[in-house]
Amino acid sequence: MIKALFAARPDRWDQYRPCLHDAFAQAELEVDLVTEAAPETVDYIIYAPNSPLKDFAPYTRCKAVLNLWAGVEGIVDNPTLKVPLTRMVDPSLTDGMVDWCVGHTLRHHLGMDAHIHGQDGVWRAGIVPPLARNRVVTVLGLGELGSETAKACSALGFQTRGWARSAKAIDGVECFAGPDGLAKALTGAEIVILLLPCTPQTENTLDVDNLAKLAKSAFVINPGRGPLIDDDAMLAALDSGQVAHATLDVFRIEPLPQDHAYWTHPNVTVTPHIASETRADSSAVVIAQNIQRGEAGLPFLHLVDRGAGY
Amino acid sequence: MIKALFAARPDRWDQYRPCLHDAFAQAELEVDLVTEAAPETVDYIIYAPNSPLKDFAPYTRCKAVLNLWAGVEGIVDNPTLKVPLTRMVDPSLTDGMVDWCVGHTLRHHLGMDAHIHGQDGVWRAGIVPPLARNRVVTVLGLGELGSETAKACSALGFQTRGWARSAKAIDGVECFAGPDGLAKALTGAEIVILLLPCTPQTENTLDVDNLAKLAKSAFVINPGRGPLIDDDAMLAALDSGQVAHATLDVFRIEPLPQDHAYWTHPNVTVTPHIASETRADSSAVVIAQNIQRGEAGLPFLHLVDRGAGY
Repeated sequence: MIKALFAARPDRWDQYRPCLHDAFAQAELEVDLVTEAAPETVDYIIYAPNSPLKDFAPYTRCKAVLNLWAGVEGIVDNPTLKVPLTRMVDPSLTDGMVDWCVGHTLRHHLGMDAHIHGQDGVWRAGIVPPLARNRVVTVLGLGELGSETAKACSALGFQTRGWARSAKAIDGVECFAGPDGLAKALTGAEIVILLLPCTPQTENTLDVDNLAKLAKSAFVINPGRGPLIDDDAMLAALDSGQVAHATLDVFRIEPLPQDHAYWTHPNVTVTPHIASETRADSSAVVIAQNIQRGEAGLPFLHLVDRGAGY
Repeated sequence: MIKALFAARPDRWDQYRPCLHDAFAQAELEVDLVTEAAPETVDYIIYAPNSPLKDFAPYTRCKAVLNLWAGVEGIVDNPTLKVPLTRMVDPSLTDGMVDWCVGHTLRHHLGMDAHIHGQDGVWRAGIVPPLARNRVVTVLGLGELGSETAKACSALGFQTRGWARSAKAIDGVECFAGPDGLAKALTGAEIVILLLPCTPQTENTLDVDNLAKLAKSAFVINPGRGPLIDDDAMLAALDSGQVAHATLDVFRIEPLPQDHAYWTHPNVTVTPHIASETRADSSAVVIAQNIQRGEAGLPFLHLVDRGAGY
């Protein structure tokens, strides 16, 4: 019998328990899934970074920590963690993220807000939006989320660019890599979508210099992580009109404090970290797959590169 | 020398003249393009339905009337018109329409308005939208615009249905035809997009009975033509909550009168017939192609079936 510790906040337990139960049965795994256990008896830890569990040292027989979230910045630097760490790559999280990113890209592309706000009886004809093929969209980060989002933008006809730390190739997407590539990817971009991991290297990716490279009146969409943006630089760019509108789903402090300038800026849309989420049913299948691989002595899927930080 | 009469309102002339000039040169056609001519000297009429030209009888040598717009309801019943009539199938119009339809579909799917309107410092977490695969989108009308829109919705993962008068087959789209098919296409639909032509048969397609077939709290998107909707039935469905929101780009009377109930209804977004438009550069190429075909004795592209009305 495999012992798996579910180390996430209690509200997730009711949601995940039945899904994990089904996924283990489907994978023909006999798993004793618990929320408390003597550390030395635990084979796998199913983990959310906001769990109170922070000291992994006593978990002496643990084969892997299986993160429930895509982002691992809350655990990757934990010095007590010596066993393999996996990220969640949940196909439903990806699908939801693509919907959210493409939806807000089209919202800004089409200038929807003018009509959503402007139901005042005035027929403002004559302003037809440009075509997608005349619009440059840049996706920063070409992991699972970024590459699928870039593909969807390209499929809709946008001139789509992508950038990642290391070189990638995606059909229909002009891919750039490395620091020089970042400047090229951003120069003249009209809509920028941030889907980078949060690491010391990616912090403040959109700073004063990089914001200045965008096309005048660009749109910024951040469903990635708050620290990717230098907030002071962003507010200045919004005030100067260099950035026409920012739609931000993630922040350095969440919930975003009520007195933060983002809430009141007329050209910012704050959404409460809802762009996409790991879904219990599909992510339970990924957890079961990884336990199956661990038991069979196969390498884990979605293993975190602890040096790179994701 | 071919004589082509440009019969549209003067504001279009400046826009189309250079594009038509280029397209004719590209097609190696020698065309005398004019806005006035003795009727019996005209070979082709390039036509917009709001042109003052209503009597085609004097145009005795005219080979075809080439409509600049996708919709032909303003000319198809003209009894003086005896020569072939073509519709505009402009690839740019299609592209723009797909953007607009997919954009508003995602807007409603994601519940964007709550955040666009609700920048009040309150972090409303926890409401993550469903996935596209759990959402039924029905496109009524599977001509060029409808079929490309349905394909784009399907590519994003929506459960996509389509309906047309006659049977069609589109990969990834569950297609229905005829009156029985309409009921099936609408039953349980959560987002409905209207891209039907405007004919006596399609008038009031969304009436009391058909609105009642939709899923409770459905969304209706109409970039097609105003008369496709029974407005009283729609307002009643909005009041009862059967329809959660309607985004309407076209109306029986345009501009929509300032005192129309659609302007003030909290669950209606009026857009001023801007979903998409024929673009001068790409449609000029289509006009040139058809003149080329007419001169070569080939059948015209996008010929209107006058009996069917489109």
